[in-house]
Amino acid sequence: MRVLILGGDGYLGWPTAMHFSRMGHDVHLVDNELRRRAHRENGTDSMTPIAGSLGARVLAWKEVSGNDIGLTMGDLCDPTVVEAVIRAFRPEVIIHYGEMPSAPYSMASRAHAVFTQYNNVVGTLNVLFAMRDLAPDSHMVKLGTMGEYGTPNIDIEEGFIEIEHRGRSDTLPYPKQPGSFYHASKVHDSVNIQLACRIWELRATDLNQGVVYGIHTEDTRRDDRLLTRFDYDEIFGTTLNRFCLQAVIGHPLTVYGSGGQTRGYLNILDTIQCVELAATNPPGPGEYRVFNQFTEQFTVLELAELVARAGKEVGLQVTIDHVDNPRIEAESHYYRAANTHLLDLGLRPRYLSETLIESVFDVIRRYRDRVITEHILPRTRWRPAERQPAPS
Amino acid sequence: MRVLILGGDGYLGWPTAMHFSRMGHDVHLVDNELRRRAHRENGTDSMTPIAGSLGARVLAWKEVSGNDIGLTMGDLCDPTVVEAVIRAFRPEVIIHYGEMPSAPYSMASRAHAVFTQYNNVVGTLNVLFAMRDLAPDSHMVKLGTMGEYGTPNIDIEEGFIEIEHRGRSDTLPYPKQPGSFYHASKVHDSVNIQLACRIWELRATDLNQGVVYGIHTEDTRRDDRLLTRFDYDEIFGTTLNRFCLQAVIGHPLTVYGSGGQTRGYLNILDTIQCVELAATNPPGPGEYRVFNQFTEQFTVLELAELVARAGKEVGLQVTIDHVDNPRIEAESHYYRAANTHLLDLGLRPRYLSETLIESVFDVIRRYRDRVITEHILPRTRWRPAERQPAPS
Repeated sequence: MRVLILGGDGYLGWPTAMHFSRMGHDVHLVDNELRRRAHRENGTDSMTPIAGSLGARVLAWKEVSGNDIGLTMGDLCDPTVVEAVIRAFRPEVIIHYGEMPSAPYSMASRAHAVFTQYNNVVGTLNVLFAMRDLAPDSHMVKLGTMGEYGTPNIDIEEGFIEIEHRGRSDTLPYPKQPGSFYHASKVHDSVNIQLACRIWELRATDLNQGVVYGIHTEDTRRDDRLLTRFDYDEIFGTTLNRFCLQAVIGHPLTVYGSGGQTRGYLNILDTIQCVELAATNPPGPGEYRVFNQFTEQFTVLELAELVARAGKEVGLQVTIDHVDNPRIEAESHYYRAANTHLLDLGLRPRYLSETLIESVFDVIRRYRDRVITEHILPRTRWRPAERQPAPS
Repeated sequence: MRVLILGGDGYLGWPTAMHFSRMGHDVHLVDNELRRRAHRENGTDSMTPIAGSLGARVLAWKEVSGNDIGLTMGDLCDPTVVEAVIRAFRPEVIIHYGEMPSAPYSMASRAHAVFTQYNNVVGTLNVLFAMRDLAPDSHMVKLGTMGEYGTPNIDIEEGFIEIEHRGRSDTLPYPKQPGSFYHASKVHDSVNIQLACRIWELRATDLNQGVVYGIHTEDTRRDDRLLTRFDYDEIFGTTLNRFCLQAVIGHPLTVYGSGGQTRGYLNILDTIQCVELAATNPPGPGEYRVFNQFTEQFTVLELAELVARAGKEVGLQVTIDHVDNPRIEAESHYYRAANTHLLDLGLRPRYLSETLIESVFDVIRRYRDRVITEHILPRTRWRPAERQPAPS
């Protein structure tokens, strides 16, 4: 298959690119290194010393694997970039990771919120119109987020829910309650993609993904130049990866609030497996389908305790700190989300284990001197402490 | 009250401004004359000869009523405009009509879709952040649309629905199925406004309005310079107003498809009444509430037949044409939407009647020589007839 990967320089995009290339597909990447620039602006960096550019990664991959990966450096918000690459590459699958992915980033200021929504919504609209005009049979595999659903007091279904109401019934889009302007941008995308599939008969799979953890895939292990990024800072770091890093460097595990927040999680290896299952089992024309992409549910405190136990096994002194929650979110809530669609397609989950955590510890130990500790604690607050009062 | 009206130059914005001014409120308008520019670009115009600028309208209003209305010419997408006006005027109510309001406009091309969503989403985000920082106790009265809901096979409730599912229940945002990128932009706004209310304790009322008809209000009758606009073209015209105009000029009434599309409708006088009821009965801090703002439901064919009957009464020869539907929408569907919240606040509806239609005929007769007939038939198609094939 001709597989176009948007956001091919990211934590998930790069390992996905290598996987599809190794499996014999024709792979082309688009990226504008937005994440690298955001890190430079913040004074932060990936813990893993990733290759200096996406171009360098592609060259290293060629050397290690013998396979070519195509590359377009450009911004999805520029329609001429999107149209040129789709016209020339004629993708059969478009795996769309190419968005600004951080909730705290989107909450930092008006400009950050506007940029996140502009970047994500306009980039996706540009891809949809280019599909309509240049690749109407291609299949968009879009990375959404479980955060679109929020924490409703009923079971979360996969994108749609049958509602019985006053004696009638219909299957309707599952109600969305995003918790940040970033999560809202993914909700906006879902609405736009669903509309495009309905009116233009496009094909799309929206993968509402949980929180991903892990460092290595089969391909990242082959050469240091093939490492994927590993973020732990308050803006781009995610729960379990950050806890593992904190355990290794002797930093208290920072649980936000009581830690009762329940979310879905999955191994980075399962992300790749899920994306591959979606890509190789496309929907029909006009079909917009949603898969909830996670393998297990945990509370934040459960994860902290799991990391602490694993740390103790290997001789680390691990403490848990409950820090003021910078977010506005329920810390104690019902949470039960369906995730059978990908299992039905053949997903074989790698469940979280102390062994896995210990293997992550090992990689972190190797790079612990690169950690910038002052960017670990959360500073971006959903509700700014000081409101500027109206002048009187 | 200090009432800030965003989009004060529009079909509804201008009559709303005069109404609040006449009722003794302190009124300030923001507009960038986007609609006037879009008409100039299309080669179309309002049927009514509105004053040459919003500034001229404000001067005429001062002369006729003795009342001052403040005015800022500027773009809501420019945060410095939004912040400056909110800082200086300190609004208690912000009535937000300031968006690109056309479904066909948004479907005309990629650039039109992107502009519509950018303009509406970013403008509203800018207002929300300015409220947070400069007017946290003010109340946003936002014009949404009944088109956010689409045409589900169950009753449409007002913004939220209680769902029972697998033995549990929750009241959740009503599922949205917008039918154009314009309608989708209003869905995006609703998501963002609801989030802002929850995390920052802002107050907002989302008025999911039906299709508005009518020309005159108490104030527009007082002086020709106070007329509001009346659009009938394929881009900005709406069903009933367009049918009335077609009846007067001897053009067949253009029913899209079978005409079984059912929607909610209301008189322009009731729009003003509803906005006033929302403004004078504000929600509490943190409350995001939704009112469905229409008074009656009709199918498109019912409206055409009503206009034809009214035309016959006054000696017009009226025919009905079923033209190819340019939209992708159900032409035969269940539709029953709740609209009790505004009635509970005291709304006294003016229902549609042949008498009302005949009074609209009278105004149209006066301006019939201004009608540009070549822009009446729909040309903007939801699904372009020719898809550009991928190069082989």
